[in-house]
Formats: sequence, structure tokens, C-alpha cells
Amino acid sequence: MTLERKVTITAIAREAGVSVPTVSRVVNGRSDVAPQTRAKVEELLRQYGYRRRASAPGDRAALLDLVFNDLDSPWAVEIIRGVEEVAHAAGMGTVVSAIHDRAGPARQWMKNLRARASDGVILVTSALEPLLHKELHRLGVPIVVVDPAGSLALDAPTIGATNWAGGMAATEHLLELGHRRIGFIAGPPRLLCSRARLDGYRAALESAGLPMDERLTVQGDFYHESGFNACNALLELPEPPTGIFAASDQMALGAIEALRRRGLRVPQEVSIVGFDDLPEMRWSAPPLTTVRQPLAEMGKVAARTVLRQARGEELDSPRVELATELVVRASTGPPAGGAAQQ
Amino acid sequence: MTLERKVTITAIAREAGVSVPTVSRVVNGRSDVAPQTRAKVEELLRQYGYRRRASAPGDRAALLDLVFNDLDSPWAVEIIRGVEEVAHAAGMGTVVSAIHDRAGPARQWMKNLRARASDGVILVTSALEPLLHKELHRLGVPIVVVDPAGSLALDAPTIGATNWAGGMAATEHLLELGHRRIGFIAGPPRLLCSRARLDGYRAALESAGLPMDERLTVQGDFYHESGFNACNALLELPEPPTGIFAASDQMALGAIEALRRRGLRVPQEVSIVGFDDLPEMRWSAPPLTTVRQPLAEMGKVAARTVLRQARGEELDSPRVELATELVVRASTGPPAGGAAQQ
Repeated sequence: MTLERKVTITAIAREAGVSVPTVSRVVNGRSDVAPQTRAKVEELLRQYGYRRRASAPGDRAALLDLVFNDLDSPWAVEIIRGVEEVAHAAGMGTVVSAIHDRAGPARQWMKNLRARASDGVILVTSALEPLLHKELHRLGVPIVVVDPAGSLALDAPTIGATNWAGGMAATEHLLELGHRRIGFIAGPPRLLCSRARLDGYRAALESAGLPMDERLTVQGDFYHESGFNACNALLELPEPPTGIFAASDQMALGAIEALRRRGLRVPQEVSIVGFDDLPEMRWSAPPLTTVRQPLAEMGKVAARTVLRQARGEELDSPRVELATELVVRASTGPPAGGAAQQ
Repeated sequence: MTLERKVTITAIAREAGVSVPTVSRVVNGRSDVAPQTRAKVEELLRQYGYRRRASAPGDRAALLDLVFNDLDSPWAVEIIRGVEEVAHAAGMGTVVSAIHDRAGPARQWMKNLRARASDGVILVTSALEPLLHKELHRLGVPIVVVDPAGSLALDAPTIGATNWAGGMAATEHLLELGHRRIGFIAGPPRLLCSRARLDGYRAALESAGLPMDERLTVQGDFYHESGFNACNALLELPEPPTGIFAASDQMALGAIEALRRRGLRVPQEVSIVGFDDLPEMRWSAPPLTTVRQPLAEMGKVAARTVLRQARGEELDSPRVELATELVVRASTGPPAGGAAQQ
């Protein structure tokens, strides 16, 4: 660490008889310092030849804004890790915000974004009003959308995962094990990724020549509790499924808890497949069979894309889908009834 | 959303025959634009009376730096949520970084921090070298340390949790259920919070008049795998424990997995208590009895403290410990042997 200054703020503060933050505020040109104090501190700064930090426009610190609806899932930390790694290497700071799908926080964030002159924005599965998108576009700030919520009409590159193929792989895995009644716990229908996973599930059943039973699809919201409730609903069907594919790991854990409370063993009595492969899933009880979505990698690609846009470079493709991968662990096995059910 | 500009960057870009990011770079005073292009864009900006965003020093956008060693745990997202909530309300951006306990990334971060003129720094359980601390102090940037790693000699306020009381509560819970051989899976000894949890465990055993058996304490590192290994070591003792207190939720899940693989049921054969109460623990199988550490609240208090420092206000106390709380769920019960062991 090279020390660029001969005299320290601490020394100036001591000499002026004020606090270190006060000197710092003067140095940074902040307005919330009493005029007399400011004059005294500035005089000392001059006297000691204190060199203000570089602040020519070209040296302005670079910032990347990463915006979530909510910071309430281990999911978020995976994306943050990927974005931060690329941003850090590029000497940029990653500003993380949550706008809670509400107009108030979104407007406040927009105001802050303008004030800090952010160099790029990564939006994660957001139902941000079109107005906000328009405003960002008007500001000329490059935008990338991770896991696009609903509208692809958006004039911004998107980074997602192969949700349809992942949904198909999860369902085919259960089919190959011999399951014929396979339940599906769906994510929020407003999200494109949910719809793609559902379609993948349907496509696999169709390929296997199985009839569609609408009762086997139950709506969830990606969170644990909805998986718990949906699993209970599936188990109360006249002919319950022997395998369940949940469209998120958290719903899969909720489903496992519903089975545990009923004394049903996983996978001996019911098989469960999740979606995401959060790092914790290796350690669920039993370790979860799931579809890996490369979240940290998606964060990295998003950050690289937004940096490329900021430099005015051409993008290879405005729509990128990273590959998902089925990870087989201990929550899936042959159906209890075995061949008899087939 | 009020629109402050009559002419948009998009319109200027169209007129100049360049990309929107290029115009944005000119507006932001960046140096990476060809001189000819810059001249043309600046002329158009003047012509249309484009108003540059406010950039008087007093209006400078406020930033809070939140620094982790690693962004690899659901733990981190809890702290981020708390910090972001307070920062957002104060109109500030939360810059999240990971320095991986290595000098290189730490130096890079320091450089970026200076460039972006951050208004405050929150360090989370870091083994940041004292040099870095000194440098931060010299810069006059207010610092708060969340969950201090080792040294309280540090000249910065700290926010932690009542780790000792939490360790004691976890152990007392097992004692009250009738356990007499209680294992402990410890966190990294370099962290103060680990040492406090260990001491709480010892204090509870001592209060109950039980002899200390050093073999019942096994070292972990807070991550799942170490809990798995430590639990196996405990089960291989000549007289294995009937209850285990793991100093993190993740190690508790690792321990549950070790028991599951051996066909031992939780809590019928072995009871498990964790520490943290990550939101997922309600949904582990079985739902985990654990000591709640108010991580999001710790993030909020840290953000409020650093803002107070930045305003030059007095702090109520330079050391704050938020209360932990035992949360009893389904991973603990009376020992298998029952009264016979007592």
C-alpha cells in the first residue's frame, strides 16, 4: 500500500481541534460543516500542503449497479459473487440495491443512481415498471437484465439459463427411474423462467407418451412455504404422484418437510427434484437431486456484458442462456410401487 | 419520476451518429472518447441546451462500502439486506466487495474506495491486516466492524452478537433435555465469536457440575464439510455424545448429514443445535433448533453507526452486542438412553 500523502487527516484534525470525520467532510467538499470550522480546516490543509484525492472527471470511480427485488434468498448471494468478481477485477464497485417491486424504492434508487453516475445497471428478475426502463435508457446507462421477468420487448441484453431444457431434464430423470405420476410445483407465472420450466416438464411427459393431468401441476412462488403447501395438495390427490419436480430448491425443501411431517421417506416413498442447485443443497437431508443453474456465472456474464456496452463494444448476442445441468444426489430413486405402477 | 432534461442522450446520439454509451461518456467527462467525436457531441449538447447532471461537491452521491472476506454463504445476504435497507433510506448506495483475506484484492479495494470517495466502511469478520485499518483511519473514512475477528485493539466501533450467552443457552437447552455427554463443534479459533461460543458451552457444563472432556470439542471452520467431519469424529469416540452443539448452522447441517449416512435419527438418537438461525433452517430436515443471531439487524445497526460517525455525531457505545435467542425446533429431544444416562 503506497501512502500518497505526507500529512494525514488525523494530524489535521488534531491540530484544528475537530473530529476526523469533520476534516474528511471539508476535504470532500461536503456542505454540512460550519463556515468557521471549514475556514480553519482549509487553512491548515493549505499550510501543510495536504493533497486532495484525485477527482478529475476522467478519474471518476467506476460503479456498477446491481438491483434485486428482494435480498431474501441465498440465490442473491450467488449472483452478487459473480458480478463482484468481474467488477472488482475491472476496478469497479458493485452497488447492491433492493427495490421490493415497489414504485417508491425504485424511484429513490433511480435518483441515487443518477447522483452516483453509475456506469451500468444489472437488473435481476424484476417487475420494474416499463417507465423505469425508459428512464434508464434515456440516461444512456447500459443495462443488462438477468433472468428476464416477463417482457423480452425490453431493449436490453438478457442473461438467463436454459430453463426449458432444465425442466425437461428434471422430468426425464424421474421418468427414467420409472415414475409415471409426476407432480410439478410451479414458480410465479409472471416470470418467463417459470413458464419455461413448466413447458420443459410438459414436453418431457409428452415425449414419454404420458397423458397430461392438470391436477399434477400446483402453483408456488419459489419460496419454501409454497412448496410445503403445494406438496400437501399433491399428496391429497386421489392418486398422488410418486415423484415431484419443484421449480426451485427452496420449494423442494418445503416439499421434503411436508413429506417428513407425514412420515413419508425421501426417496423411498416419494422422489423430489429441485431447480437452482444452491450450494446448501449438497447438505440438505437427503442431499437434493436438482437442476444446476449457474447463478454466479450468470452474474459474471452480466457484468462482462454491461462493461462491454459501457465501452461501446459490440455484443456477441443480445440474448444469452447459460446451460443448466442435472445433478443427481440422494432425493430421487425408483417409485415405491416399482414396476407395478408402469 | 420527473424528467429533468428536455433533450435526451438518445436524441443526441442519433443526431451525432454515435452510440448512446459514447454520448454518455462525453457527458460524464470520461477520457476514452476520440477527440473528434467528443467535439461533435459537445457541440450538439451545447446546441440543444442539454443539462449535465448535478455534480457540485455538496451533491456528490453518498456511498457506503460493505466488505466481506468471501461472498459464499447465505449469512452474507442477511447482513447485506440490513445494511442496504438503512443506506437506501438515507439515499446512499451500498458497495459490496469481497477481499478473500488476501493482500492483493484488499489493496485493489482500498484503491477503489479512495477513488469513489466512500463515506463509510463496514468490515465484516475480516482478518484484514492492521496496515489496511491504519490506512482507512488515515483517510478519515468512518469504519465499523461487524462481528470483530480477533482484535478489539482496533480503533473502530464494533457490532456483534451475544455469542457467549448464545453458546451457554444452546448448551443449557441440551442439559435441560437430559443430555450429559454434549459435543461441541467449534468455529475458527482466530475469530472472537468462536471463542465466545466455546466459552459459553464450557460455562454451561461447569454450571451443571459436569466434568470437561476435551475430546468432546472438535474443531470446525463454520462450513458444512467441517461439521460433517467433526460429527464423524465425535461419533467414533468410545463414548459418543447424545447431543451436539455446532457453532454454526452450516456445520449443524453437515453433522445431520453425517448422522443420516450412519442411519442415526435426529433427534431420536442424537440431538443437534446450531448457531445463526439462517432463514433456511426452518426448512432443514428436521427443522433446526438453533441460536438466532440477528444478522440483518446487525447490518442495520452497523449502517446507522457508520452514518452517525460520518455526521460527526457521538456514538452511544463503541461496542454493541445484539441479543441472541434460542429457537427450539425439531432437531433436539431427550437423549436416547433417557434417565438411564443421567
